[in-house]
Amino acid sequence: MKLQSVGIKNIRYPITVREQSGGLQPTVAAIDLMVNLPRQYRESCVSTFIEVLNRYQEEMSNRIFRKLLAEVKERLRADSAHVEMTFPYFLEKKAPASGTPSLMEYTCRFTGGIGPDEDFTLSVWVPATTLCPCSREISAHGAHNQRAEISLRVKYRKFIWLEELIAMAEAGGSCEVFALLKRPDEKFVTEMAYQNPRFVEDVVRRVAQLARRHPAISWFAVGAESFESIHKHSAYAYVTSDDT
Amino acid sequence: MKLQSVGIKNIRYPITVREQSGGLQPTVAAIDLMVNLPRQYRESCVSTFIEVLNRYQEEMSNRIFRKLLAEVKERLRADSAHVEMTFPYFLEKKAPASGTPSLMEYTCRFTGGIGPDEDFTLSVWVPATTLCPCSREISAHGAHNQRAEISLRVKYRKFIWLEELIAMAEAGGSCEVFALLKRPDEKFVTEMAYQNPRFVEDVVRRVAQLARRHPAISWFAVGAESFESIHKHSAYAYVTSDDT
Amino acid sequence: MKLQSVGIKNIRYPITVREQSGGLQPTVAAIDLMVNLPRQYRESCVSTFIEVLNRYQEEMSNRIFRKLLAEVKERLRADSAHVEMTFPYFLEKKAPASGTPSLMEYTCRFTGGIGPDEDFTLSVWVPATTLCPCSREISAHGAHNQRAEISLRVKYRKFIWLEELIAMAEAGGSCEVFALLKRPDEKFVTEMAYQNPRFVEDVVRRVAQLARRHPAISWFAVGAESFESIHKHSAYAYVTSDDT
Amino acid sequence: MKLQSVGIKNIRYPITVREQSGGLQPTVAAIDLMVNLPRQYRESCVSTFIEVLNRYQEEMSNRIFRKLLAEVKERLRADSAHVEMTFPYFLEKKAPASGTPSLMEYTCRFTGGIGPDEDFTLSVWVPATTLCPCSREISAHGAHNQRAEISLRVKYRKFIWLEELIAMAEAGGSCEVFALLKRPDEKFVTEMAYQNPRFVEDVVRRVAQLARRHPAISWFAVGAESFESIHKHSAYAYVTSDDT
Repeated sequence: MKLQSVGIKNIRYPITVREQSGGLQPTVAAIDLMVNLPRQYRESCVSTFIEVLNRYQEEMSNRIFRKLLAEVKERLRADSAHVEMTFPYFLEKKAPASGTPSLMEYTCRFTGGIGPDEDFTLSVWVPATTLCPCSREISAHGAHNQRAEISLRVKYRKFIWLEELIAMAEAGGSCEVFALLKRPDEKFVTEMAYQNPRFVEDVVRRVAQLARRHPAISWFAVGAESFESIHKHSAYAYVTSDDT
Repeated sequence: MKLQSVGIKNIRYPITVREQSGGLQPTVAAIDLMVNLPRQYRESCVSTFIEVLNRYQEEMSNRIFRKLLAEVKERLRADSAHVEMTFPYFLEKKAPASGTPSLMEYTCRFTGGIGPDEDFTLSVWVPATTLCPCSREISAHGAHNQRAEISLRVKYRKFIWLEELIAMAEAGGSCEVFALLKRPDEKFVTEMAYQNPRFVEDVVRRVAQLARRHPAISWFAVGAESFESIHKHSAYAYVTSDDT
Repeated sequence: MKLQSVGIKNIRYPITVREQSGGLQPTVAAIDLMVNLPRQYRESCVSTFIEVLNRYQEEMSNRIFRKLLAEVKERLRADSAHVEMTFPYFLEKKAPASGTPSLMEYTCRFTGGIGPDEDFTLSVWVPATTLCPCSREISAHGAHNQRAEISLRVKYRKFIWLEELIAMAEAGGSCEVFALLKRPDEKFVTEMAYQNPRFVEDVVRRVAQLARRHPAISWFAVGAESFESIHKHSAYAYVTSDDT
Repeated sequence: MKLQSVGIKNIRYPITVREQSGGLQPTVAAIDLMVNLPRQYRESCVSTFIEVLNRYQEEMSNRIFRKLLAEVKERLRADSAHVEMTFPYFLEKKAPASGTPSLMEYTCRFTGGIGPDEDFTLSVWVPATTLCPCSREISAHGAHNQRAEISLRVKYRKFIWLEELIAMAEAGGSCEVFALLKRPDEKFVTEMAYQNPRFVEDVVRRVAQLARRHPAISWFAVGAESFESIHKHSAYAYVTSDDT
């Protein structure tokens, strides 16, 4: 049992994420770090990691994240190093009819492993509305709909923005979700959802189509969890690019 | 600072709850216990509580709960004792059109304090569908709807069943929620919700009306949290019997 | 039932908090807003709140928070308005022996109500070590110890910094907790905790003494939850300034 | 994309688990079900699953679990079916010195997949005390210790009881954890932990040794998360039977 992972879990740290728009967004990440070390250096492992994190704290992106991880591995002389950072990320969205701007929150994650099994993943969790096709078809009026959460995880062959992943995931639902809607916007999203009924299977298929076409994406997994308005449990669908 | 509460938090324990139907339902409770003691007897406090709990574990109801609490207080010679038990509780519900039975899960809580401030509360958290009146009114088709959670907390002047509280809370939404729905049931609940549009304000007002009429209830608080399908945040309303 | 609260729950928003050191710290808050309105203006309620929040987002403190709340109430012509903001907050701490700096994370909350029941509260949740006096006394070697969480909520008659509350709460445990400790620091904190055995009752009493002496504090509540290393449940103690 | 998983997530249901002692223990499970279907039969999927669950609800074990899953797959004519059930499970433990009995709670999980990738896993999460070897070595008195959570997941070639997994996982820490300890027991566990200092790496290595020797286990993964009393983050170690 010479290969064994040790590390720290659930340390929270302020980071600054590079936005596609060029800006820098401050946020707070929950971070896990695991390394495979020839011997036990737990103290130096944590302090080295914190030191490296401090250096890159000022600007984080999936490009920077790779450098951070390489530096952690080198300075600890580890066989491998694995880091995961999960953080809320905000984008300004305009309401669909009135154009009123508001900030929408998404959950994002950088995951990276360096060593024998190099592995970089970007993940986003995006809220959306799903409206049930079956309910719409059989009912005299209306159709049950609900908030859903769409997840998109990708491996990539070249640089890709979180904003691109968020846009693909948001396109999967019956309608997008907003932080602020005026009356004409509420009419717009209600009608749009009604015109785009989608089961969770449809949602993941749609997002998978978009991810498949993106030149930077080499692998993906899409999940959709619908917090059913007519049940206490969720409907769920899942597909990866390996399912052909 | 002679009055000071000490106790244990978040111990999980199997209990058996007396059903209105006469049966006994096994479930698992998360329990907090706090006492005000003349001196510190933490060890005996925990072991006494566990011993008393063991004796009443076989049959719990709000009637029994009062006895348990009195015994805890007496055996510890405490000035006061406060216990809270939160547990999932299952009731068989029949689907509204097909009559297909399934088990629906509710969260329930017994809260009791004995001593200078005697205080007994029963609480239930019940899922429901809410359908937005505004969205329905302004939209050509459909209306946004979502899962909501309705809470009802009551103090009582005579015995009341959890089943009675659940029924009052379930009556507050645009439609009830079920664990299992066949096709005709899905049509039924979709149409029923469409015919009963309710803001969270309407939900709490409706449940408050029912609670006010119940002869056993001496005080109540009603909350409704709607997990908006068009937002990432919840709409919330709250009212108590003190708000006249 | 003319008094009824309506609002939104659990919207997340970036804010910037004024530090005692003079700096401004960006963080992400989870926000609840409740108002009592003469009639229902839910749409304007949310959009007004978001607009006001946007104006004050650049600099938040308990001073600013009062202005924000007053503006929300006035613009909505509400009878009362109640806002709660909970956010992670980071302070640099130096390790006790080596002086190595690292960022420590605390959970903080601004709570404010304006209207018939004006009410402003600041709250902090602070991690600490507790070491059991009983275990130390009866054991040949060692003593069980564990991470604990100390909460301090205060109402204040004049301005008070989050940093002051954090310092009082951190003084309550057997030893403070740090994000980064070198070997001599680990020796220091182990020995310090051993020399300062404290039950949760002792913790809340100590923090209460400090809070009582602070001239700005008009009311306080202190809680201590110890995630016992020898049990799966927590030990808990609680005291307020009303318990004399 | 012909292979696609659909199902339900997070339905809670009462089940009864066969104990090694011969008894039957009622508990409440959180259940996920995913199937790969030739076409979409979501309605029948849920109702079939609930029907099958109802039949096996009276007695669950990993033996029964396999039958349940096979029946779900057959009745839905699915290519594959995957079910996960997570539930609290209680065992009576005697305090180590006084012999006082109390109920200890563990989290357990049955995970099973039937179809092209048959896969059955049993998992347990067990609380324990860990005492830091480094802290003990460098400190004049005491050593920091804390609650930890040890997880053991196994695949098996023949029947194995949850009780056996729990016993292996509990043997990994510096000392076991109990729901109820008298004074002589507290002395016992404090001293035992002090005599058995273990890093999380040591914990997973110890549990791995035990799992490796068990004739029924064909694969395992062991994790140990230590909720450090001197930090706000956890120390973590992980090893699987593939790491040789």
